Amino acid sequence: MSDRLVGDLPVRDAASVAADIPADAALVVSGFGSVGYPKLVPLALADDERDLELTVVSGGSVGEEIDVALVEADAIARRYPYQARPPAREAVNDGRIEFHDRNISTLGDDVRFGHLVDADVAVVEALAVGPDWLIPTSSIGQTPAFVEAADELVVELNRSVPESVRQFHDIYRTELPPNREPIPLTDPGERIADDRITFDPEKLTAVVESDRRDQPYEFRDPTDDDQAIAANLGAFLETEVEDSPLFEDSLRIQFGVGSLGNALMGALGDADFGDRDLVYFGEVIQDGLLDLLDDGDLEAASATSLALSREGQDRLYEHADRYAEDIVLRPADVSNNPALIDRFGVVGVNSALEVDLFGHVNSTHVNGTYAMNGVGGSADFNRNAAIAVLALPSTAAGGDISRLVPMVPHTDHTEHDLDVIVTEQGVTDLRGNSPRETAAALIENCAHPDFRDALREYFDRGLDHGGHIPHDLETSLDWHTDR
Amino acid sequence: MSDRLVGDLPVRDAASVAADIPADAALVVSGFGSVGYPKLVPLALADDERDLELTVVSGGSVGEEIDVALVEADAIARRYPYQARPPAREAVNDGRIEFHDRNISTLGDDVRFGHLVDADVAVVEALAVGPDWLIPTSSIGQTPAFVEAADELVVELNRSVPESVRQFHDIYRTELPPNREPIPLTDPGERIADDRITFDPEKLTAVVESDRRDQPYEFRDPTDDDQAIAANLGAFLETEVEDSPLFEDSLRIQFGVGSLGNALMGALGDADFGDRDLVYFGEVIQDGLLDLLDDGDLEAASATSLALSREGQDRLYEHADRYAEDIVLRPADVSNNPALIDRFGVVGVNSALEVDLFGHVNSTHVNGTYAMNGVGGSADFNRNAAIAVLALPSTAAGGDISRLVPMVPHTDHTEHDLDVIVTEQGVTDLRGNSPRETAAALIENCAHPDFRDALREYFDRGLDHGGHIPHDLETSLDWHTDR
Repeated sequence: MSDRLVGDLPVRDAASVAADIPADAALVVSGFGSVGYPKLVPLALADDERDLELTVVSGGSVGEEIDVALVEADAIARRYPYQARPPAREAVNDGRIEFHDRNISTLGDDVRFGHLVDADVAVVEALAVGPDWLIPTSSIGQTPAFVEAADELVVELNRSVPESVRQFHDIYRTELPPNREPIPLTDPGERIADDRITFDPEKLTAVVESDRRDQPYEFRDPTDDDQAIAANLGAFLETEVEDSPLFEDSLRIQFGVGSLGNALMGALGDADFGDRDLVYFGEVIQDGLLDLLDDGDLEAASATSLALSREGQDRLYEHADRYAEDIVLRPADVSNNPALIDRFGVVGVNSALEVDLFGHVNSTHVNGTYAMNGVGGSADFNRNAAIAVLALPSTAAGGDISRLVPMVPHTDHTEHDLDVIVTEQGVTDLRGNSPRETAAALIENCAHPDFRDALREYFDRGLDHGGHIPHDLETSLDWHTDR
Repeated sequence: MSDRLVGDLPVRDAASVAADIPADAALVVSGFGSVGYPKLVPLALADDERDLELTVVSGGSVGEEIDVALVEADAIARRYPYQARPPAREAVNDGRIEFHDRNISTLGDDVRFGHLVDADVAVVEALAVGPDWLIPTSSIGQTPAFVEAADELVVELNRSVPESVRQFHDIYRTELPPNREPIPLTDPGERIADDRITFDPEKLTAVVESDRRDQPYEFRDPTDDDQAIAANLGAFLETEVEDSPLFEDSLRIQFGVGSLGNALMGALGDADFGDRDLVYFGEVIQDGLLDLLDDGDLEAASATSLALSREGQDRLYEHADRYAEDIVLRPADVSNNPALIDRFGVVGVNSALEVDLFGHVNSTHVNGTYAMNGVGGSADFNRNAAIAVLALPSTAAGGDISRLVPMVPHTDHTEHDLDVIVTEQGVTDLRGNSPRETAAALIENCAHPDFRDALREYFDRGLDHGGHIPHDLETSLDWHTDR
């Protein structure tokens, strides 16, 4: 491919494109894991002098051009299903933006069905575009579903992304139910489709040329807690792969987005899984995975986003041909597909804000009220994984707050789904436990020693009341109301 | 098939079989929807004079021979994943039985993987048995997975179940991950397998002959509330099938187990879906479905259990040849399979104990502590349905208690999954709503008028605190602690 802009396309500047977008339009935008999102059209909308009341739907996390600039311009009325920048978060919590928090795996369907939003304009970043096709940049996310669902299509052609990135893409699409076929993927590393999204050429109303780079993740260095969690997780997995018939030849695994997930990925190379292949089937490629690939510890990696640091991006782009032998990027409704997570028997490893004594998990709302980012794909993996692992430090705020609490004030994942909890203190295997057994084990194995007595006191009060989940309702939320 | 007992099998009496079962054995038993469970061996175990500490795992709900007799004999130490009889419930809540509550769809896998229990003996009801095969009776449930996983197999050959029941069975099996193939079902009514479960003949240690009938469900007559909920649900669905591209030719639907679900099924014949076929893809066949089939309103019905009343059983058995043209019974890991629910675009309709202002649902634990039956398949359908509907009366206890509450003290289903809430008062469509919008709509549309002022007062207090989910934590559980 010598030219990234193929055919006689309506190339326009961002300001004129923005001016044509209705003030109350529903925009569905590319982007996932902070990369691959459109930049110039959102910035132009932020500069637009009209009173905008946009609905903005992204596949996942996007950059400041959307969740800072558009928010500060007071241009977003509704936002689905994930945001990860402070100004968007503040607006969501103040009630200035109506925010609806959905699972990643089903969001594309929600938009295609027209059940969540009537999509007016898809604004999508591409590394190449033709009259009826485009090739996404550093994430696929829900872009194929959004392009299909929207009435109009605006493409931001970004020449800062190397053309070689297209080698990672495998963009399989499903029919609408009830005639939906199973996804014919038999292995996480397999390729079953093309590198491009096709569309009705009538839809393409503008191509905006861009060379503005993503604002990707910044991962902190692994902390002592991260390393202790990684060691505990590794020891658990070493035993598990020996005991379970699921792991005779390989271990398929997913890690959540963020610094802890990144650190856990990177540390997995230290565990001893015998002759077994390690295979990643998850949502994002983070820097830790590149380390595993470089060391020959990882067989293949499937995801929907190159959620790398700037250094990770540069490293990947420089050796794209080599990495593309092992890395596949898929649409988010494939990377997070419940059926595939089940069929591959994935071990899901995700973090959270806090977990209670009985295995209920709060991923999204501080004190049950204040929204952080969104549930993302954590429920897709917790719900469908062969083994769902919650990995988190036992404390927050420099040790002042316990992440193991009497009762979570908001539940994103239930005890029906979760299998194992790992902290820097140790491991609790919940499988087959009653809630009472889980509570006793969590206090002794996973809680920070500074909080064990207080947790024991709460549990004893609960036992005085009785019940299958022996809560003392009167004091169950005291740890949250006292903050 | 002229003889139900084929070959030279080890026919024995129940007492001698029971005596050979180790006192701390893990038993995996047939049964789902209160039918198809073993009866004589559990009764013999209840009469056994040893101190038994059994683990008992069933596919779903079973009868008094297990969850009353064995419980009253103090013979059960652990019970998974569902119970629905008062003595078992009391023991679970008193802490005398360790109970672990899992989703239906994955329970068979949990047992096959050895992750939940190391299954010693499968005790399984059959209508016919040979040296290496058996044909289940009135439910399939997790019996195929249990027979595969257990070291030994005991079959209760029940001649009270007509041989014609085998016509309903379609027992498809999956491989273990990571080599699991997609289930090749393209339509809820299709047949893809055989009527029998095969096993290693070395496993079969006993056949016990029985003519003891199931103790099936008793459905109450529909109440005024049931009928009002059915009318509101019907009106919602009539609009939805016109608006959504999912329902051009047909509506695929599931209803939860119980009297309300049964009433909603039966009332669906009154709704006008134009030329669309109505197809049932759920967990249980209840009496209401027979009415729809008799009236020609239902194209096909797929489930895992004939959870009928005694009258329903008699009616089905009398015309089994005719009903078997439209009714298919599958293993519970097929009937509740996430991938199939997704591929068929099922509308899931389930009930619960209560729901809070922000769309979190408590299905299982009164006051967050006291276990009722178990989550059953409700999360399988809520999580994977194209549209997840919660249908429940707005009040309980003769109107004294609101089922719409400020905060649920236990969450089985989250706002990330739920789409629509229907009470006898009206309908709230949650799709695309922020939590604040959901709360306002639920109070006005779905709450009972007697409780609207109190709910408004709570919501106002929450708004004073702010946040995406504006709770007033201090008073959030007052409605439960004041009971």
